[in-house]
Amino acid sequence: MAGRRSGRRPGPTETRDAILVAARELFAAKGYDGASVRGIARAAEVDPALVHHFFKGKEGLFVAAMEFPVDPAEIVPLIFMGPPGEIGERMVRTFLRVWGAPEFRDQMMALLRSAMTNDQATVVFREFVSSALVSRAAATLDIPRVRIEAAVAQMVGIVMLRYVLRIEPLASTPEEELVELIAPTIQRYLAP
Amino acid sequence: MAGRRSGRRPGPTETRDAILVAARELFAAKGYDGASVRGIARAAEVDPALVHHFFKGKEGLFVAAMEFPVDPAEIVPLIFMGPPGEIGERMVRTFLRVWGAPEFRDQMMALLRSAMTNDQATVVFREFVSSALVSRAAATLDIPRVRIEAAVAQMVGIVMLRYVLRIEPLASTPEEELVELIAPTIQRYLAP
Repeated sequence: MAGRRSGRRPGPTETRDAILVAARELFAAKGYDGASVRGIARAAEVDPALVHHFFKGKEGLFVAAMEFPVDPAEIVPLIFMGPPGEIGERMVRTFLRVWGAPEFRDQMMALLRSAMTNDQATVVFREFVSSALVSRAAATLDIPRVRIEAAVAQMVGIVMLRYVLRIEPLASTPEEELVELIAPTIQRYLAP
Repeated sequence: MAGRRSGRRPGPTETRDAILVAARELFAAKGYDGASVRGIARAAEVDPALVHHFFKGKEGLFVAAMEFPVDPAEIVPLIFMGPPGEIGERMVRTFLRVWGAPEFRDQMMALLRSAMTNDQATVVFREFVSSALVSRAAATLDIPRVRIEAAVAQMVGIVMLRYVLRIEPLASTPEEELVELIAPTIQRYLAP
């Protein structure tokens, strides 16, 4: 804690906040892959063990720092668990359910806007999609990454047209009808 | 031309520019469907016939006002002409070819950014996609609009991941490989 002006020992909330501030700075400056837990801990003047204590690791820290409204470590396995023959259906349902919640949508829109208008945010967003979504799926499914990305692209496009641009009739098509229309596409990409 | 302060008759360039300025204002204020050629002509203080003379009609005027780098009236029919059995392949190739050109990409990125960060631009973009792309396709293909929008969503997502976020390996996958992977999806949506 060298360099702290106050002699008072910082409380857990202050320490957690200091780590988040440092994390936002380093993720923005170096991207997701370039920033390390050790470097962030050093910038926050805390022991790296505290980063693990508060955030479990780099990905949890990133989720907290970016204020991601859901943790992909919890969501992504939901898609890939269960019968392989229904993986398309599960992926469509998960995307629609998560994006259907207004509070999630508002925060994701803010993140998407940053990713589209700020080069540094683009880098961070790209590396995060690669690491947290695609790599996680690739570890479970024995298929080329480009097939996973094609499936993600289909869902990103649906989200853009349905929730961002709100193009009709897609914007008000019932979930069940969309699952029927889109799930076979995802199924073909992920379980060829 | 009532209200013009100068007695000098405006030249064709001035008239064209006045129409474009009025068009940008009215499209932003009222959206694509809400703005009329007549209303734009009135705001620009010109005869509506001049709007048709310079821009062929409302869509041409919109393309010019938004500085769209390509005219969907030229591009979209390319997809829907030719053998129906190859419609998926033609759509994927057309999107990749158009987005592969850096000057097109830069301008489309600027438009996409506006659509994502400005509510009025979102309205204009949405109505334009509906009118110029989806309605045009729906007039040729006898299928529900939501199927056309699912196909557009797939291509929008590919464009986002490949050209905006530049996620690997999708960003550097050769065109031929992507056509092979994505065309069957589009084919299924458009020619079920």
